[in-house]
Amino acid sequence: MSDRIMLKLGGSVITDKSGDCVIDHDRLAGIAEAVAGAQREGILIVHGAGSCGHPEAKRYRLDTGATAENAEGIAVTHHAVSSLNAEVVAALRKAGIEAIGIHPLHAGYADEGRLIAFECRQMERMLDLGMVPVIHGDVVMDRSRGACIVSGDQLIRFLAGRLAMRRVGLATDVPGVLDGETVVPVITPADFRTLQIGSSTHTDVTGGMRGKIAELFELASAGIGSEIFHVSRIPDFLAGRDCGGTRVTR
Amino acid sequence: MSDRIMLKLGGSVITDKSGDCVIDHDRLAGIAEAVAGAQREGILIVHGAGSCGHPEAKRYRLDTGATAENAEGIAVTHHAVSSLNAEVVAALRKAGIEAIGIHPLHAGYADEGRLIAFECRQMERMLDLGMVPVIHGDVVMDRSRGACIVSGDQLIRFLAGRLAMRRVGLATDVPGVLDGETVVPVITPADFRTLQIGSSTHTDVTGGMRGKIAELFELASAGIGSEIFHVSRIPDFLAGRDCGGTRVTR
Repeated sequence: MSDRIMLKLGGSVITDKSGDCVIDHDRLAGIAEAVAGAQREGILIVHGAGSCGHPEAKRYRLDTGATAENAEGIAVTHHAVSSLNAEVVAALRKAGIEAIGIHPLHAGYADEGRLIAFECRQMERMLDLGMVPVIHGDVVMDRSRGACIVSGDQLIRFLAGRLAMRRVGLATDVPGVLDGETVVPVITPADFRTLQIGSSTHTDVTGGMRGKIAELFELASAGIGSEIFHVSRIPDFLAGRDCGGTRVTR
Repeated sequence: MSDRIMLKLGGSVITDKSGDCVIDHDRLAGIAEAVAGAQREGILIVHGAGSCGHPEAKRYRLDTGATAENAEGIAVTHHAVSSLNAEVVAALRKAGIEAIGIHPLHAGYADEGRLIAFECRQMERMLDLGMVPVIHGDVVMDRSRGACIVSGDQLIRFLAGRLAMRRVGLATDVPGVLDGETVVPVITPADFRTLQIGSSTHTDVTGGMRGKIAELFELASAGIGSEIFHVSRIPDFLAGRDCGGTRVTR
């Protein structure tokens, strides 16, 4: 069995969602040190767009698709999220990690807002060579809609199985899925209807926490469990220790 | 039949090959004006790496493949060619063209130094929306070699048919294939052994003019002719006029 792990960095963990693409460089440096300190191979990183891309996608109404009229928004939105990706990669490389960015707009294809294809073999070979691919929420061309927004969480759901990931972890700015002030230790797809999941107050064209959980339930149904934990617990996740968060299982 | 055309900008046309990644911004601006002036849709642009990428690829010996030992060269080389791509895209956008870069490292996959896969549907949709995809010579992950260098000319050969290109033009710093000081108006694969093609004196890990012609002969054999002409003739090529260069046919 592979020993690969997928680490998702929430958009609100690495950007300040109150501004337009305000990147939290100190936070990024800390995460990079944690990943470097884990001294393990087989890591793939996914990050959200946060305030780099969501405002642009909304401004150009890419959530409703793209035609020749708003096609300009594809390049503008992709440029915003790519800039964030470049900063994430730069922080990781500064910490000595052989990180490299991969853009879903280039490697993937969607239909009706859902990925239907994604070239994975380049990332397979990168992982073989000890590299750390870094992918991100992005605008993706869409067969029926022209273009759509693919969240980091949808990327996890589509790619974790195809890349034979053994564990999937989501570092967020909360300690897990909360019931009042208590972290719910385990949730399963059967809990979906009864879960009280607040919708994000931030600009988010990808569905917020409810959208995230729906993706993770799909992943769990396919046999791949995941964990949601606070960003400070990344070293625990990478080492295979308990992260004090919420496990999503089937 | 599609009305799509593929325009290749040689690496030595848009960079000064004597230095390390010296971009010819005036030349780029002129090309962008010519493309904007053509006022036509269905254009895909391919460019070589020139002095942005070739020196890095050579320094890390990527022409012989990649292992964990020289994997650093993958990101370094890709960064160099991506920077050039960003400048080409910026020049085109400044001229009002809805250009967007696509990286072969992200979209493609190779074996034994040759492309075996390339996601094309995102570019199909972009062309449908009036956008101009801009791809470039790049490092590409390789099943048997770890990684390899894929030239702009190999991209043309692999993609022209798959993207249903009607015409393919290569803008270079010479007026065509030369016999002494005379432009050879037509060459066919049958001419290959008798052609006296000089090898490039510049740093080029992709085979120089001989490699270029070999790719175009393969393309011609597949039924897609191409033209090699001087960069100043881009307006003629885009308008479908004679370019005074060399036609490669079967």
